[in-house]
Amino acid sequence: MARPEGEREIIARIRQAAGSSGDLLLGIGDDCAVYKTPPDRVSLVTTDTMVEGVHFDLAWHPPLELGRKAASVNISDIAAMGGLPRFALLSLALAPAFDGRWLDAFMVGFLAVLAEHGVALIGGDTVQSGHESVLAVTVLGEMAEAELVTRKGARPGDVVLVSGFLGEAAAGLALCRLGLAHEPDWQTLVAAHLDPVPQVALGRALAVSGLVYAMQDLSDGLATDLAHVCTESGVGALVMADKIPLSPVLRQAAEICGQSPLDWALSGGEDYQLLFTVGEQQVAELCTLVREQTGRELFAVGRIIEGQGVFLEEAGQRREISYRGYEHFR
Amino acid sequence: MARPEGEREIIARIRQAAGSSGDLLLGIGDDCAVYKTPPDRVSLVTTDTMVEGVHFDLAWHPPLELGRKAASVNISDIAAMGGLPRFALLSLALAPAFDGRWLDAFMVGFLAVLAEHGVALIGGDTVQSGHESVLAVTVLGEMAEAELVTRKGARPGDVVLVSGFLGEAAAGLALCRLGLAHEPDWQTLVAAHLDPVPQVALGRALAVSGLVYAMQDLSDGLATDLAHVCTESGVGALVMADKIPLSPVLRQAAEICGQSPLDWALSGGEDYQLLFTVGEQQVAELCTLVREQTGRELFAVGRIIEGQGVFLEEAGQRREISYRGYEHFR
Repeated sequence: MARPEGEREIIARIRQAAGSSGDLLLGIGDDCAVYKTPPDRVSLVTTDTMVEGVHFDLAWHPPLELGRKAASVNISDIAAMGGLPRFALLSLALAPAFDGRWLDAFMVGFLAVLAEHGVALIGGDTVQSGHESVLAVTVLGEMAEAELVTRKGARPGDVVLVSGFLGEAAAGLALCRLGLAHEPDWQTLVAAHLDPVPQVALGRALAVSGLVYAMQDLSDGLATDLAHVCTESGVGALVMADKIPLSPVLRQAAEICGQSPLDWALSGGEDYQLLFTVGEQQVAELCTLVREQTGRELFAVGRIIEGQGVFLEEAGQRREISYRGYEHFR
Repeated sequence: MARPEGEREIIARIRQAAGSSGDLLLGIGDDCAVYKTPPDRVSLVTTDTMVEGVHFDLAWHPPLELGRKAASVNISDIAAMGGLPRFALLSLALAPAFDGRWLDAFMVGFLAVLAEHGVALIGGDTVQSGHESVLAVTVLGEMAEAELVTRKGARPGDVVLVSGFLGEAAAGLALCRLGLAHEPDWQTLVAAHLDPVPQVALGRALAVSGLVYAMQDLSDGLATDLAHVCTESGVGALVMADKIPLSPVLRQAAEICGQSPLDWALSGGEDYQLLFTVGEQQVAELCTLVREQTGRELFAVGRIIEGQGVFLEEAGQRREISYRGYEHFR
């Protein structure tokens, strides 16, 4: 390592604030972390990498919110299976410009999200990078095997649902790029980009219900993420443009930015809402159950069909949008 | 993601070659990987990040060997607890210059090491980076809780042992920097730098023996790694300069490079041999057992003492070397 003392100080500081858990036998400070998984549970693991200048821009992403987001986008993957997040590892490759104050604020945000979800930081490393900083996070979770919801179970006839407004994060990013991040009107959208909320409680409720056939989180936009579900399940999907939940403030921002709100929803990505399919006969039951348990509304946006490909229906016209957005096919 | 199609192709190619395991319920291709841990075992997890230009130099590190090393240095952390490596995740942030052929060769090397140790690749991601490439690997392992060997158990009076020649990787790096990587005389040293071997079988044998009180792998050099063991155990250590195993070829290379072979051994790092402590009365028993089970020789290099700090004794003189090398104190 190029900076052994700096690295040791950073690790000591992080170790103090890392949190704990009854199942954790050994956290930060050895070659490995060591933990127990209850015997009747399966383990989940996911990893996500964020690169400065590609996945985040320090010009408008404050360190605390970036720390929160680095934790949240990984916890979101656990939520997308219906799991409980338990442990996290953080690998930081930091450009020379990063100082201790930046790192402190980043860690405050990162550890706050972990604490909100009962997750302990159990390992990682801190290395120097030459030009851009790279943040790689791994999150471990657990759940009962019987409750696991994968991308593979969608069947023709299923209704496709999403758990909230789409396109908000893409709109927030566009507003940040235009230098409008601090205007009061856009705070909901900007927060959706800077500090997305992983849907852990909702994911658990959906998985425990036993009514959901396939699920994933919306990280790359509906067009791409639904295509993943369809590819894994061996089916196609039809999305109704007029059913996609777009908020009034999103439509206002789209006008300001000269963008299509539907394109943001389909291809913008980073909303971290849940996308899932349910048998037609069970939709009402699930919506009632979710409303009672979490106070949340669900939005039916389309249907699983035979064949392959994701299609958008708008004003009686169908076009394929698999792995793409909306404007790409104009 | 900036390159959704390229990314999907890369993931599809990696997924095909990722390997499998009976305990793996779900590998690459969903939000999380899902696996089972046998009920009487604890789980181990470790992560390590390698940055282009800091931890590796593409001028002399061929992609296949770099892929091998990225896997090996993480598996080495599992070996350092006495565990069995089981699953790996790979996060690649790749600079624009990386082409498919480079990535193919990297993956061949990475997956070959996983296969040598029965490890399945179960997740990861591939993103674009601006300038340098960053490789972050996470490896999961398992073992019986009773066999776990941490850094914490060293006691005054213990003998400090290492599992092989030290300084070889540092010498190999120096030779690569001098453009001597292809000379036949130096192949052992160059291989120690480009393609280190994780000591999984030896780590298992040491852990199962029940005779080892503290252990870690030698990634940062004896001076720093022994200081970690001492700090965690609340003890000090005394290393005898003339007991450190230095190979004849290392001494030759040191002359060529104008370096101190002892400095390479103490502060060069990346040898990935094991460092461990054993009660004085058990050293002979352990050496016999290890020789019978693995054919390996062990080297006693010093002793755990009361107090704190790592000291080097050379020609009757003692100097502190905690977290440092040898030349730093000349």
